[in-house]
Amino acid sequence: MARWQPGADGRLREAALTLFLERGYEHTTVAEIAEQAGVTARTFFRHFPDKREVLFSGVEPLGTGMAEALTAAPADATPVEAVALALDAAAALIGGRRDQSRRRQVVIDANLELQERELVKPATLASALAAALRDRAVPEGEARLVAESAVTVLRVGFDRWVSSSGRQGLAGTLRQVLTQLLALGPRPS
Amino acid sequence: MARWQPGADGRLREAALTLFLERGYEHTTVAEIAEQAGVTARTFFRHFPDKREVLFSGVEPLGTGMAEALTAAPADATPVEAVALALDAAAALIGGRRDQSRRRQVVIDANLELQERELVKPATLASALAAALRDRAVPEGEARLVAESAVTVLRVGFDRWVSSSGRQGLAGTLRQVLTQLLALGPRPS
Repeated sequence: MARWQPGADGRLREAALTLFLERGYEHTTVAEIAEQAGVTARTFFRHFPDKREVLFSGVEPLGTGMAEALTAAPADATPVEAVALALDAAAALIGGRRDQSRRRQVVIDANLELQERELVKPATLASALAAALRDRAVPEGEARLVAESAVTVLRVGFDRWVSSSGRQGLAGTLRQVLTQLLALGPRPS
Repeated sequence: MARWQPGADGRLREAALTLFLERGYEHTTVAEIAEQAGVTARTFFRHFPDKREVLFSGVEPLGTGMAEALTAAPADATPVEAVALALDAAAALIGGRRDQSRRRQVVIDANLELQERELVKPATLASALAAALRDRAVPEGEARLVAESAVTVLRVGFDRWVSSSGRQGLAGTLRQVLTQLLALGPRPS
């Protein structure tokens, strides 16, 4: 029953980013995105509920992928070791697309509604990670703290990677930020 | 020119919380909040731009108070030591109002729009703290990471304190969560 062409999803994303940058997010319609991608508006709506979600539909797979990596970590891995593997999984999901990530960021930074929507992402990710940590029998309080910290590392590392012109990949940047976070303590009294 | 009575601000907050819990946030009007507080709607609008902001107007003073504590920390304090003082300042600003904080949380948890607005808070706080850390000559990358982590400690500690029936105050809970965060490292390789 799948009548859309393979890759329509990717083409729609690319078309939306191009038009959002050219005309502004507010002045781009779903019909224009579909036309640019060479599909019908009906096909658009098979992939995304609206034009905003073209920019945000990657968040759920990211949370799922990170949670799966947490679940698949060796049974004797500490919460922090398991989180390091989840960050590797995030880098594998996002990592090859620095240019696309940058363009997406430009679109979001130009629009208040999109910025607010973007703030939902860390909360969604942290919930998914905390649940996966609890499934590993990490106590509730620690699970929440480690999950929120993992998201902090992801956000800080992602921003560093997107704004950098260096050759370091996302995985290396995330590992570097995690190490930096863990090196902050202990708190001198 | 200040014609409103002293304490109108606090009375409006209390009236709004009471009505939001009794009737629901959506079904409460500014006129009703003002009436319950014994002031005119005009007085309401001298204090708050709309009914939503009654719930969120504490965020800016919180950011200011925490940033001031960071700035006032001894010159030789490490970023983490300075952040510990900022968390003490947050506890001093919020700490006596566990019951009010709980009621506010019930209102927010019942409404999607309020939940989205609540997500703006950590971003606002983190920006204020990162700026104050940069003013202390903490390098940009570290300032961002430490600021985001301070907000994580505040959120996790605040939730723990609000949902606890124990006698530990907010300041003690925040210090405990900070210690827990700093004890996570180093990452075993």
